[in-house]
Amino acid sequence: MKNTSKTFLYNNIASAIEEQINSGVLKLGDKLPSVRILKKEYGVSVSTILEAYYRLEAKSLIESRPRSGYYVIFSKDKLLKSPEKTAPNSKASHKSKAEIIIDFYQTINEKDIVNFSLGVPAPELLPVAKLSKTMHETIIHLKAGGTYYDTIQGSENLRRQIAQRTLLWGGNLKEEDIVITAGCTNALSLSLMVVTNPGDTIVVESPVFFGILQLANTLGLRVIELPTESSSGMDLNVLKKVLRKQDVKAIVLISNFNNPLGSIMPDSHKKEIVKIIKEYQIPLIEDDICGEIYYGKNRPSTCKSFDDSGLVMWVGSFSKTLAGGYRVGWVAPGRFLKEILRLKLCLSSSTTTITQETIANFLMKGRYDYHLRKLRQTLHANSLKYITTIGEYFPKDTRVTKPQGSFLLWVELNPKINVKEVFNKAKEKGVVFSPGTIFTLQNQYQNCMRLSYGLPWSIEVEKALKQLGKLLKNSSL
Amino acid sequence: MKNTSKTFLYNNIASAIEEQINSGVLKLGDKLPSVRILKKEYGVSVSTILEAYYRLEAKSLIESRPRSGYYVIFSKDKLLKSPEKTAPNSKASHKSKAEIIIDFYQTINEKDIVNFSLGVPAPELLPVAKLSKTMHETIIHLKAGGTYYDTIQGSENLRRQIAQRTLLWGGNLKEEDIVITAGCTNALSLSLMVVTNPGDTIVVESPVFFGILQLANTLGLRVIELPTESSSGMDLNVLKKVLRKQDVKAIVLISNFNNPLGSIMPDSHKKEIVKIIKEYQIPLIEDDICGEIYYGKNRPSTCKSFDDSGLVMWVGSFSKTLAGGYRVGWVAPGRFLKEILRLKLCLSSSTTTITQETIANFLMKGRYDYHLRKLRQTLHANSLKYITTIGEYFPKDTRVTKPQGSFLLWVELNPKINVKEVFNKAKEKGVVFSPGTIFTLQNQYQNCMRLSYGLPWSIEVEKALKQLGKLLKNSSL
Repeated sequence: MKNTSKTFLYNNIASAIEEQINSGVLKLGDKLPSVRILKKEYGVSVSTILEAYYRLEAKSLIESRPRSGYYVIFSKDKLLKSPEKTAPNSKASHKSKAEIIIDFYQTINEKDIVNFSLGVPAPELLPVAKLSKTMHETIIHLKAGGTYYDTIQGSENLRRQIAQRTLLWGGNLKEEDIVITAGCTNALSLSLMVVTNPGDTIVVESPVFFGILQLANTLGLRVIELPTESSSGMDLNVLKKVLRKQDVKAIVLISNFNNPLGSIMPDSHKKEIVKIIKEYQIPLIEDDICGEIYYGKNRPSTCKSFDDSGLVMWVGSFSKTLAGGYRVGWVAPGRFLKEILRLKLCLSSSTTTITQETIANFLMKGRYDYHLRKLRQTLHANSLKYITTIGEYFPKDTRVTKPQGSFLLWVELNPKINVKEVFNKAKEKGVVFSPGTIFTLQNQYQNCMRLSYGLPWSIEVEKALKQLGKLLKNSSL
Repeated sequence: MKNTSKTFLYNNIASAIEEQINSGVLKLGDKLPSVRILKKEYGVSVSTILEAYYRLEAKSLIESRPRSGYYVIFSKDKLLKSPEKTAPNSKASHKSKAEIIIDFYQTINEKDIVNFSLGVPAPELLPVAKLSKTMHETIIHLKAGGTYYDTIQGSENLRRQIAQRTLLWGGNLKEEDIVITAGCTNALSLSLMVVTNPGDTIVVESPVFFGILQLANTLGLRVIELPTESSSGMDLNVLKKVLRKQDVKAIVLISNFNNPLGSIMPDSHKKEIVKIIKEYQIPLIEDDICGEIYYGKNRPSTCKSFDDSGLVMWVGSFSKTLAGGYRVGWVAPGRFLKEILRLKLCLSSSTTTITQETIANFLMKGRYDYHLRKLRQTLHANSLKYITTIGEYFPKDTRVTKPQGSFLLWVELNPKINVKEVFNKAKEKGVVFSPGTIFTLQNQYQNCMRLSYGLPWSIEVEKALKQLGKLLKNSSL
């Protein structure tokens, strides 16, 4: 019978590939042969190959990536466990770690270093030539070559583009809801300054992006770090307990692809936290800087999309997707718009005109969407390659996150391992990463590290990971 | 005798010109005929004409401007008096005027308005095409097209250029002494935040640039405004009295071509204030944003050049001379360098890469000096034209400053005149200026206005000044 014969054929093909995956011939992140090549090889129809791939997809062994092909997403042996929920204590802390961070920024531009502490995708993954071209086109047509002061609120062209993109996640912002800032850090600092005073207490996730800790410290704020899941983000039950007992002036969190944990709050959690802040009338500063770097089918939603009280201050930036050096970010500050404008006026006046208009044009011309599709594919593939390699070379009891977006891995090692010691040894050998201790004010994460996979995959990267694995194994002896 | 005959000749020529100046045929700011033309006309030698011009120069009737020619700098009837020393009270004030200022910024980009409230030279006076060209050249050669985060301290190329220029005023700064900021406002805010806490008291000039008042207010600071001379700046005797009685945490002043008063501190005053702050150990934030726009022979000195205690934080920017929209300024914070770097890191991270490098290249190629020479000449000529026209059309008892640099006039009118009323009427007619009341937190300067002559001279400008004069005369009836 024709059907049986066809069934046999695609089952046969699917089994062959599955075996290769299970035996490790096809590794996590590997690209499968194209449909056309397999068609030739097996002498069957395109639909038979596609059927085989569908079967493998249904088993979560491979996945199709638009305009790119099919990739292995499973590895029997090498996939390490995810970290467990973090367990900071909920006492407010207040201390400084400025110096170590300034050091980090200074290594960014050093050469001959494999830099896993990078907070941005490497230039090779950015549309550098197209951006420069866009800037050139922009200067030519821009009034007075962009020498004039922009308005405090920022380029209307750019705000319109940002507003339009909020439709992708169920937002419905208008250009007048948005204030352009000199990058995301600037948006965070303005937002925090508007809703807090020195001595106030704020709530953050744990581990938490060190920039937020630094900022809080600079503003004289006390910080409560909450338990966080690498899958779903901040523990909202603990949050409720804290709010019942303590006077909290703001919550700061990274709702999508958290830095460093990679967690993404499910919609149900986003809805719930918006309900909680409304009850307590506490502003929520939602850092969504990597929301556009999702690997799934859709752009994840934001807390802002469920906000009907104006308490959510939605913060974003082009620093991670286009150009950190352009210094263009934004905040949609809800009910705090007027205060943000006033503070921005007083502290720094307008934002650089030419970089704003260049990005606006880049978006208007559709170059951003094209670039993002490529960036997501590359980073997704990178994540799998990094995870597999870590599985191969790091100690067996290592735990690692499986992020669904952005470019950061959180690695939890055996508590016996002294990561600080490994950090110093690795630096000597030209490998840099972010030690876990800088992501908390508490005495924690000594056995953790954040690894950025924003560097393009290469033999050097693989060697560096192998090197790191070796140092870690030696340290655990 | 040959000599007598020659004496007669140049005396004759000088007298003829002097008469024209006295009778108003040659007006303040007018260009005199070139030496070659006069030589032909009188049938005499070049040296005879030059001798005549030297005589007139010695009498302060005309002046020579390098590469441009000779200009009338005297007007018998039309020159109004200078304002007298201001007399604010020395009680600390603390209130807000945010809204009126945001309004100002929003009119900046409106068309069909003669905008005398402009805080920058108009684009026609800026090297827009050359800057854009430099930016294009810069992008091409810049690593990763400037998409990378710069260091927190800022572009080394640019800091070196700024450091080199300090030799012009007896400074001897090195690139490591300088921190690049996102414009001058940003430099001022970082500096003030580093040396003050909310509730502290600072000392400023009166009238004072409203941005400083706004900033102080935002930071919760109390402000003491000191009497200031339009010729020599802050009254240092009053300063000493205040410091003896009150706990002052910082002094903020614009040492050269003060905004709005145009005053320039003589070197003796600069030396003295540095002595005073050393005695009291009080940081001095020296805003020198227009120091390069001098009309005289030399770049005026700064308080920084007399500072051996590291207490002077010298602040500058390219916003007034090149491109406000580029957002590039700096501070040389003396002993507060580490604190400034830390604060900048936390509040906004690095500064836009491409605009920094573009300016660095513009300076390196000598384009800045060439541009500044032209800008100074144009603005100097503008100042004389504006002053003459004001003398012609404004009420006779008007007082006006005679700035030796920058592009701002402070106009003091008869106290009967309600400038706020005139402001509203003028705005309806498409003429905007800065009312005096925004330059103080006290109840003062209701009869004053700041007029920017950063707009190129034109029939429209003359008409607008005439219009203003008419409204003022009507208001004084």
